Amino acid sequence: MLEPVVVKPIGVVRSSVKEPRRGGWESLESTIVVQDRWASALDGLEGFSHIFVIYWLHLISENLRETTTHVHPRGDHRIPLQGVFATRSPVRPNPIGLRVVALLERRGNVLRVRNLDAIDGTPVLDLKPYLFHDSYDGVPESTVPDWIQDTARGHSPPSSDERQRQES
Amino acid sequence: MLEPVVVKPIGVVRSSVKEPRRGGWESLESTIVVQDRWASALDGLEGFSHIFVIYWLHLISENLRETTTHVHPRGDHRIPLQGVFATRSPVRPNPIGLRVVALLERRGNVLRVRNLDAIDGTPVLDLKPYLFHDSYDGVPESTVPDWIQDTARGHSPPSSDERQRQES
Repeated sequence: MLEPVVVKPIGVVRSSVKEPRRGGWESLESTIVVQDRWASALDGLEGFSHIFVIYWLHLISENLRETTTHVHPRGDHRIPLQGVFATRSPVRPNPIGLRVVALLERRGNVLRVRNLDAIDGTPVLDLKPYLFHDSYDGVPESTVPDWIQDTARGHSPPSSDERQRQES
Repeated sequence: MLEPVVVKPIGVVRSSVKEPRRGGWESLESTIVVQDRWASALDGLEGFSHIFVIYWLHLISENLRETTTHVHPRGDHRIPLQGVFATRSPVRPNPIGLRVVALLERRGNVLRVRNLDAIDGTPVLDLKPYLFHDSYDGVPESTVPDWIQDTARGHSPPSSDERQRQES
């Protein structure tokens, strides 16, 4: 019933980062090289300070993503297992990456960006302007579960082992 | 060099809206029915108030999206033509939809959501938790071009015709 969709990448990431890593993307500058045929479709994007990059995590094996339903977020075993859709894990049924990046410069078919968490050679599927206003992409009133808040503050919740010890 | 990517939808939208329309999604409630095999991959998603839905605009013809590089945003001819990547137009090389929705309820493999701008039968490619904090998905300092700000305030900028008249 739900037929597979064929997506042709519109460009590729060029970055000094050649291997997957878990963090440290915030200050990284990289470029997105859009295919020549789509260069003019970028017209006007340079008016936005931030854009969404939608890309394909091409190194995640089909076997891994077809068989993984739960992960420990960020590989941290102190955080309880979560369904992959409740995480931003790259291992998911369709390894589609989504990141808000700062757009530093557009020159023809090349975008210079900061904060893109994708390695060199990553296929890019789509680019969209980021629209904070009117709760379109910016939803300040949104809430998250405790495990996110705890880890966002830089400390993980106690594991069940630690909790048992604390409670005993 | 950039090979096509095959994406298998993980679910489908069920909605009272059967035909494409331009707006009026904010208060609409619809459901996302995830394939049974991925139901457990939703575990924990119910802890988030808002999620990203990434979907495929299946009604956009390949011919239209292969030949369109510029559009008038929202079909408003008073707004100058923009490259499709500078807009959220459904007509784009890969018609991937991205929307932040309120997650009202999860029951097994079914999510009830509000504000999803996708019609009944739309294939869903991925679901992600929305993380406002730490400028991850929420970037209050982001800026947009004038034509967005003007139309966000509910009035369009003058067309070049009107501007000529005003200036003459």
